[in-house]
Amino acid sequence: MAMNGAESLVRTLVAGGVEVCFTNPGTSEMHFVAALDRVEGMRAVLCLFEGGATGAADGYARMADKPASTLLHLGPGLGNGIANLHNARRARSPIVNIVGEHATYHRAYDAPLTSDIESLARPVSAWLRTGLSARAVAADGAAAIAAALAPPGGVATLILPADTAWEEGSGVAPPAPVPPRARVPDEAITHAVAALRSGEPVLLHLGDRAVRGEGRRIAARIAAKTGAQLLAMTSNARIDRGAGTVPIERLPYPVDLARAALESYRHIILVGATLPVAFFAYPGKPSALAPPTCDVFALANPEHDQIDALERLAQAVGAPAAVDPPSPGRPSLPGGERLDQDSVGQVLGALIPEGAIVCDESITTGRNFFPVTQGAAPHTWLQLSGGSIGLGIPMATGAAVACPDRKVITLQADGSGLYTAQSLWTQAREKLDVVTLIWSNRSYAILRAELANVGANPGRKALDMLSLDDPPIDWPSLARGYGVEGRRVETLPHFIDVLRHALARRGPFLIEVAL
Amino acid sequence: MAMNGAESLVRTLVAGGVEVCFTNPGTSEMHFVAALDRVEGMRAVLCLFEGGATGAADGYARMADKPASTLLHLGPGLGNGIANLHNARRARSPIVNIVGEHATYHRAYDAPLTSDIESLARPVSAWLRTGLSARAVAADGAAAIAAALAPPGGVATLILPADTAWEEGSGVAPPAPVPPRARVPDEAITHAVAALRSGEPVLLHLGDRAVRGEGRRIAARIAAKTGAQLLAMTSNARIDRGAGTVPIERLPYPVDLARAALESYRHIILVGATLPVAFFAYPGKPSALAPPTCDVFALANPEHDQIDALERLAQAVGAPAAVDPPSPGRPSLPGGERLDQDSVGQVLGALIPEGAIVCDESITTGRNFFPVTQGAAPHTWLQLSGGSIGLGIPMATGAAVACPDRKVITLQADGSGLYTAQSLWTQAREKLDVVTLIWSNRSYAILRAELANVGANPGRKALDMLSLDDPPIDWPSLARGYGVEGRRVETLPHFIDVLRHALARRGPFLIEVAL
Repeated sequence: MAMNGAESLVRTLVAGGVEVCFTNPGTSEMHFVAALDRVEGMRAVLCLFEGGATGAADGYARMADKPASTLLHLGPGLGNGIANLHNARRARSPIVNIVGEHATYHRAYDAPLTSDIESLARPVSAWLRTGLSARAVAADGAAAIAAALAPPGGVATLILPADTAWEEGSGVAPPAPVPPRARVPDEAITHAVAALRSGEPVLLHLGDRAVRGEGRRIAARIAAKTGAQLLAMTSNARIDRGAGTVPIERLPYPVDLARAALESYRHIILVGATLPVAFFAYPGKPSALAPPTCDVFALANPEHDQIDALERLAQAVGAPAAVDPPSPGRPSLPGGERLDQDSVGQVLGALIPEGAIVCDESITTGRNFFPVTQGAAPHTWLQLSGGSIGLGIPMATGAAVACPDRKVITLQADGSGLYTAQSLWTQAREKLDVVTLIWSNRSYAILRAELANVGANPGRKALDMLSLDDPPIDWPSLARGYGVEGRRVETLPHFIDVLRHALARRGPFLIEVAL
Repeated sequence: MAMNGAESLVRTLVAGGVEVCFTNPGTSEMHFVAALDRVEGMRAVLCLFEGGATGAADGYARMADKPASTLLHLGPGLGNGIANLHNARRARSPIVNIVGEHATYHRAYDAPLTSDIESLARPVSAWLRTGLSARAVAADGAAAIAAALAPPGGVATLILPADTAWEEGSGVAPPAPVPPRARVPDEAITHAVAALRSGEPVLLHLGDRAVRGEGRRIAARIAAKTGAQLLAMTSNARIDRGAGTVPIERLPYPVDLARAALESYRHIILVGATLPVAFFAYPGKPSALAPPTCDVFALANPEHDQIDALERLAQAVGAPAAVDPPSPGRPSLPGGERLDQDSVGQVLGALIPEGAIVCDESITTGRNFFPVTQGAAPHTWLQLSGGSIGLGIPMATGAAVACPDRKVITLQADGSGLYTAQSLWTQAREKLDVVTLIWSNRSYAILRAELANVGANPGRKALDMLSLDDPPIDWPSLARGYGVEGRRVETLPHFIDVLRHALARRGPFLIEVAL
């Protein structure tokens, strides 16, 4: 069957299990768009801004454990998507990132939209290829899927010159093989066993797959036998948690608190976690958070089979076959009028519905939400992974596309939410079941703290750069602009009422919470 | 006087004539922010999104003919600013683009926000340097200013590791020398004279400085003597036009119309313009727009002194000392009820106030606005230069900062405006005198045409990707969300009334024009 390159690529993507394309196309992508018409099995989700598309692909990948594709327009379109591709890279989310490009022969003319797309793509891409011909582009697509899925997972960027889309293609390419996760060597197990039997304090520092749910269950068995402690990374791509799961705290974000959390350990065993380092450098403070006397050892890197490594370690130390996690119980609703971090956290603990997906870009507001929600109904928690703000609303959009039967709750700092609020429109258009909670403190609160952390002594002009209250953002109006219903709440009882209402209905809803 | 690197940099920027910083800072930029407090003469303008900052710096540079600085947060912040830096690059706008980075010693730890900033910056930067020490950073800043101003003008990116900001600096660096615009060689004048005397049809194709105002006056004298025709590029960074100026048409955007506009010429003399090429490639159509038989010759490239070249050419052909431009007269207000491209263009021609700055990202809607506004009161017209949509609202913001006494009017396509609408908030915060007109056709209208141009035969799913009407964007609500008053108009008389009201008051105002 004769088909052009674009159609051969779309059919190859569908054959390789890629079912969703988050798009913000332009002229050079029109053949790809037209091919979507002719191919069954690829859902096209339009985004108003590329950061919405890439953030949605990240949220989708975290929940589906397989890639969506994006469709971006040349270098500037990729540029707009870079911030959330950076987050996806840090979350190790598989994404097939398709970037349209001028026809191969047209690039030499340096038309206005011409730019060095590869240079822009390289920093966020685990795999990068520019299509050379229409006959090769299906195989390029198959290779991109395999590269995205290759452990530990990543962004595979395929740059698609327009003529490789419109000229005659070669038909559907078969899926390319995906290497399995590597098994950690026996020596690594032995080293970890020695640490656990040393009689000295040991931390099991969990990240990536090891922290999700099953990994924590095995780690808890090891802890029960050996007395080791468990700690998650500061940011985690996905944790399945709530009632019946193993509770876990996270390494604190502030450097001094993080160092205090690690200072008593003599051994830190990394399982899917990377070396604990400060998010930012500060004058006079170290970058590495573990004490210098501590043996930091990677049992399993993110590309390894972390579950297998934990299970072998559990058996090697003679861990029990199962331990019952503690049951903190669901928090009750708080009383009083006051909206603050504590009361809001308690409301979340009480009201998060079973099966909910919480997309957390709370920044300063949400640092204490984690313990109080441990006793909530079972749910999944996704965090901002790469520190690039503006992920929350797009990530929720993608998670809702991946899991249409689960309620999605976005915990969104106001300053960060303003980067990519356009994704609310996609939520309305696709009738996604997402409740967005905006923590409205009308400032870049994190920067007020950071200004103090770096030792700077701010005056009016500096503080003015961190303030969002002149004029105040009117979030319900913004939401209405994008076709989403919204309310502002200023008291705790009103928040509880409106949140209950939003959770009981289907479809997108936004609540601006005055803090 | 002891000062840290950040303060030495800010003082150097002010000493070098950089008076405005469009900021969206993060933790790694806190010392720069703190330094703004201690230094007189640098206005800090906060943007909610980096594309707003870079687009504003572009608009500022076009009107001030000198650079503003930006302040962006690491690789992802730069990423968000890339689309409008791409436009600035194509407009040859001088910008000192400052990108914060982790402390030099912290980069090796690969903290979550670490990325290859240079790789991201290179495609949009005429000059690129990463600061190595606090003592060198003032000189780096002086070099960046000179590089931004070096003809033809460009984006100078200075990456600023946090420790080069907080450690002790070296004091203010003196301004670095800026090379003058090169004089075109006499041979180029001779070649152009020969073409003009050949008796064959000649086009003077004007861009960059040659198209602004003075260049057109000289070109018109040459045309009066020789019979040559004048034509501007499709996109122009800045044209000063309206009553009393030399009228000029632009090379049409659609390839077939552009080829038709050029097909009769045997000589095309480029003055500040680049080679006429198709914006996009299309199957079966050429990339170069000039006929193969045509001699295309660059009298002056953008880095040359184009005014000098035109004046020498005028003298060489014996052009008259002055010619009076035709006086088309200000259009009268149209009658009837119907809002369409023609009636809207006529309203603009009638109501654009003297001294207004028109920031044009009209895309499809505005292709016919140019002729009908030639007779308007004298004004300045800025266009989307690099094809990267989402420039209009930010560019207007920067132009208004540069020219507080001039009315700014943004002509904004709705699809494009949704990329960077956050800049409305900066307009409100800074009380900028900007009227934003949104052409609300609720679709990516340009892509409907392009889908046909590339020969694709769209179905429902493809057309759905180009539609913005489900749900419709409510622009007055969006504006209110950002603190700007807005109205939607659906009839011509209502549009005229509301536009008159908006032009008569000061401060930002938005009108959604139903088309």
